[in-house]
Amino acid sequence: MSRLGGIEFGGTKTVCVVGSPGVVEDEIRFATGDDPAANLSTCAEFFRAQHGVEAIGVGAFGPCDPDPGSPTYGYVTTTPKPGWGGFDVLGALREGMPDALLAFDTDVNVAALGELVHGAGRGLGSLVYLTIGTGIGGGLVADGHLIHGLMHPEMGHIPIPRPQSEIEVFAGVCPFHGDCLEGVASGPALSARWGTPAQDIGPDDDRYEAMWDLEAVYVADALHILVCTVSPQRIVLGGGVGEQPQLHERIRPRLQASLAGYIQQPAISRHIDEFVVGPALGNHSGGIGALELAHRLVSEDLVPAQQSMAAGRAVADDDSIGPITS
Amino acid sequence: MSRLGGIEFGGTKTVCVVGSPGVVEDEIRFATGDDPAANLSTCAEFFRAQHGVEAIGVGAFGPCDPDPGSPTYGYVTTTPKPGWGGFDVLGALREGMPDALLAFDTDVNVAALGELVHGAGRGLGSLVYLTIGTGIGGGLVADGHLIHGLMHPEMGHIPIPRPQSEIEVFAGVCPFHGDCLEGVASGPALSARWGTPAQDIGPDDDRYEAMWDLEAVYVADALHILVCTVSPQRIVLGGGVGEQPQLHERIRPRLQASLAGYIQQPAISRHIDEFVVGPALGNHSGGIGALELAHRLVSEDLVPAQQSMAAGRAVADDDSIGPITS
Repeated sequence: MSRLGGIEFGGTKTVCVVGSPGVVEDEIRFATGDDPAANLSTCAEFFRAQHGVEAIGVGAFGPCDPDPGSPTYGYVTTTPKPGWGGFDVLGALREGMPDALLAFDTDVNVAALGELVHGAGRGLGSLVYLTIGTGIGGGLVADGHLIHGLMHPEMGHIPIPRPQSEIEVFAGVCPFHGDCLEGVASGPALSARWGTPAQDIGPDDDRYEAMWDLEAVYVADALHILVCTVSPQRIVLGGGVGEQPQLHERIRPRLQASLAGYIQQPAISRHIDEFVVGPALGNHSGGIGALELAHRLVSEDLVPAQQSMAAGRAVADDDSIGPITS
Repeated sequence: MSRLGGIEFGGTKTVCVVGSPGVVEDEIRFATGDDPAANLSTCAEFFRAQHGVEAIGVGAFGPCDPDPGSPTYGYVTTTPKPGWGGFDVLGALREGMPDALLAFDTDVNVAALGELVHGAGRGLGSLVYLTIGTGIGGGLVADGHLIHGLMHPEMGHIPIPRPQSEIEVFAGVCPFHGDCLEGVASGPALSARWGTPAQDIGPDDDRYEAMWDLEAVYVADALHILVCTVSPQRIVLGGGVGEQPQLHERIRPRLQASLAGYIQQPAISRHIDEFVVGPALGNHSGGIGALELAHRLVSEDLVPAQQSMAAGRAVADDDSIGPITS
């Protein structure tokens, strides 16, 4: 078995792991910071010290470019995060690890892959990983494949219905859309809406029930949308807000009520507790997913273009470059 | 080249075609009716008269079961359409065509496949086909694969934001969700909202502008949701309402405004006229998609379980049967 590496670039922290499929043998965690070159240099130093790392899977915060046929494959693209916009993550990593095969995807797609193969989705073919924290993002594996297209899913930025009484008191915090899902249901949105950081509003606070009830309305509607658009076999909720048990217990009955018996599947009607779940891999969903991405690269499960690009050879990919995206 | 067959079961009409990939050589069209056994018998008679049809692809209205690992694979399941609920479409077809390989999916997934491979999506890897007519439904091909999971996409039944003034005057017509997308934007919803069938409200009618402007608000929000959840490279709008050019011209700028520059892709910012389009295959999206499904079956592009089931042999499919769906 070859030795594999994985990197999870979050907006605030970076995690580097080495190991084998499903197993983390060693890791480092450090602040992502505003100097991407220094960050990647730290990553490469860690991997070089491990000896014999054959392939590295990378999951990065977005928006980024996961299209192996694109000239900016492996770049973080239009992020507002200082220093990172337009940075060639995969290129910088290749400089430090010239002999390793490299694969790149979004942080949430990689976490979805990790949970599907080794965590909460073992035995299934499709899964959504939705993280609700500083931002909201979602990854999707369907029929075993990570899903891309025009770009990658940006599930935090969907429009959702809002109660009129809420529209009147809170405009939402998304700089692009105001009251999209992320604008009303992320951690910063909760802080802005209730005037106090969500983690400081405990069960004894007068606002506790109202805050989590409203959060559950928004997230249950978002899950209703995901059930009807991508039909996942399971939904994993991650992130500082998303993992709260008081949220899960409120979401499940609301999701059933919202779907109103239309999706007649036991997973919804009888086993909702197993349909909406927390991550089984704790804070390793991304790291183990990144190892799995590296494993797929080595075992040639990826499309040829991804392998070729990862090895530094640019090839055309007829399936992913159409007339409107070139 | 083997001779292929295809069936598109719509809620109102059935289309049977024979031909080769991308080419319809002969076809029949007839009312779907309330007697599914008689319907399938007519289909089988048509195919038998053609001689040598090796494989037949079937696209059916839903909800239906497209999971080759399920005991009800090939059934229409919970449809309100009289006579069809719980009917074994593939089983009835196999009785009339015992020697043909059979594959089954939703009508809209099959139409999406047809448009991707031979129509408006040629050269691309992913596409959504959204039909807006008597109902609203969507099919999804991503990275060349038809997408399934817990069930199949049911894109008509997503919750969407509604203007408060509209909430006050119209509750929507969906018997399950009231004012989901289908409840406010399908043909019957337009008729109920405006008191006149949509096709009778022409450009000279006082209500024409308001009706299409409101329809564009709803559909543009739905497309915003699809862009952020499944990231298609192109969206094809079909159906009696969906194909109206006055709708397309209203949707495109609204979709751009709704996404508000967040998805920085030329397909959205510069080539929106090529991103939201009508079907290139006219009323043959489903038929040519069904032929393509049959072609994939014959050329062994389908997963083994689908081929085995289609040949009448039940096999376990570890990827599609998880603990929560069994």
